[in-house]
Amino acid sequence: MLKKYKIVLIGAGNLATQLGLTLHEKGFEILQVFSRTIESATALATRLNAVPTNDLAGLTDVADLYIYAVKDDALEKVINTVSVKNGIHIHTSGSVPMTVFASKQANYGVFYPLQTFKKEKRVNFEEIPIFVEASNLQTAENLQIIGEIVGKNIYQTTSEDRCLLHLSAVFACNFSNYLFTVAEKILQPTNIPFSALLPLIFESVEKLKTLTPQQSQTGPAARNDKKTIEKHLNLLAKEPQFQQLYQLLSDAILQNVNP
Amino acid sequence: MLKKYKIVLIGAGNLATQLGLTLHEKGFEILQVFSRTIESATALATRLNAVPTNDLAGLTDVADLYIYAVKDDALEKVINTVSVKNGIHIHTSGSVPMTVFASKQANYGVFYPLQTFKKEKRVNFEEIPIFVEASNLQTAENLQIIGEIVGKNIYQTTSEDRCLLHLSAVFACNFSNYLFTVAEKILQPTNIPFSALLPLIFESVEKLKTLTPQQSQTGPAARNDKKTIEKHLNLLAKEPQFQQLYQLLSDAILQNVNP
Repeated sequence: MLKKYKIVLIGAGNLATQLGLTLHEKGFEILQVFSRTIESATALATRLNAVPTNDLAGLTDVADLYIYAVKDDALEKVINTVSVKNGIHIHTSGSVPMTVFASKQANYGVFYPLQTFKKEKRVNFEEIPIFVEASNLQTAENLQIIGEIVGKNIYQTTSEDRCLLHLSAVFACNFSNYLFTVAEKILQPTNIPFSALLPLIFESVEKLKTLTPQQSQTGPAARNDKKTIEKHLNLLAKEPQFQQLYQLLSDAILQNVNP
Repeated sequence: MLKKYKIVLIGAGNLATQLGLTLHEKGFEILQVFSRTIESATALATRLNAVPTNDLAGLTDVADLYIYAVKDDALEKVINTVSVKNGIHIHTSGSVPMTVFASKQANYGVFYPLQTFKKEKRVNFEEIPIFVEASNLQTAENLQIIGEIVGKNIYQTTSEDRCLLHLSAVFACNFSNYLFTVAEKILQPTNIPFSALLPLIFESVEKLKTLTPQQSQTGPAARNDKKTIEKHLNLLAKEPQFQQLYQLLSDAILQNVNP
């Protein structure tokens, strides 16, 4: 019975909190919660009926699943400090290869929910895609089953594909957010607040539910409106970096729409 | 009583349809609907209790407000064909200066709702910012009052500010949409569909309701993670345009976060 899997949760941050709460609600038994400070371990452990600990080397060895939900740059050190050898060991990182476990564990993998998390904001894992990877077929099956208990969209992926996923998210989220920063700066000399753009921004991402990004491309470059492009480039004369971005993105859209 | 303002609607496209339906519901009387074909004029006029026409030179001169909701590149020709001289004449374009009316009319202006419209999808104008500009104070007051009957967020702006608004929307919507296209292309060699990115994209724009774009900036460049940036640039080796974009956007974020 997988629902009786006993879990040790390593980490008490944003993702650990949301994943822990969901696993607990779904009937999994959380034995221990580790955090560097006993205070933050206790804060989460109390909500999960679990025992808090700040002793990584002394974790219980009777759990079936060890979830490493710690920062990317701390992961390797944490893995090397854990002495437990049995059970399945998984991390939750988008960009760290599964093989980070290879020299220490026999059954290991990755369980990567693609979303940003906050401790205080409950999330619905059924709306979050989860990317799973495992060191062997049995572990892959187990992670798939756990994934399907927690969420709805489970993808078995390789570390290479997870890398490309992370890269694509940088374009889709981090870089598009930077363009919102540019938009805000362009509005600064006016009396128009950035919030006036929000309804249009929301509508433009809403369209992605029914159209591909290429289908929903609009704007001066998409309609090859050279007059407006020229006018915009002139408006950006004092911001060479924005001007360069405008030119590069417009050229790319032009080529993409009329390949 | 402004609610009794009589209106002639020039245009029967996406914006004309949504604005016309809203004005009709709010109690304004629509006298005529013009379109180049009598069929499309009739289709909208029927819904607005108005008379359809395809005779621009013969529009009634008893209306108080003439709304030119036609394509940007048709606007000047349409304005020059209308022979009516009384009433207020406004266009609904984001990028055409108000002065396009200057040689033809005495009382004129702009009434620009910042949203994308479709004929078949009803929109709530209360959620749409409306940018208003007028040739004189009395017209500005009239447009403000009409704006407040139709919507909730009315901004009096100059043509110059409206230009900057349009430019900022190109960055915030058109260019960010292109980055979604890039994300989709990066995922093509994997078994991961673009739709897997949607929950993260929605969450990342949702944050803009409570944080400025600069505050919500995350990702490798924001945390100066040179190792990941290097890895990503290598992954893009076969896509020089994407690589150049990645470099330019990462440099800009780095400078923006650590100025």
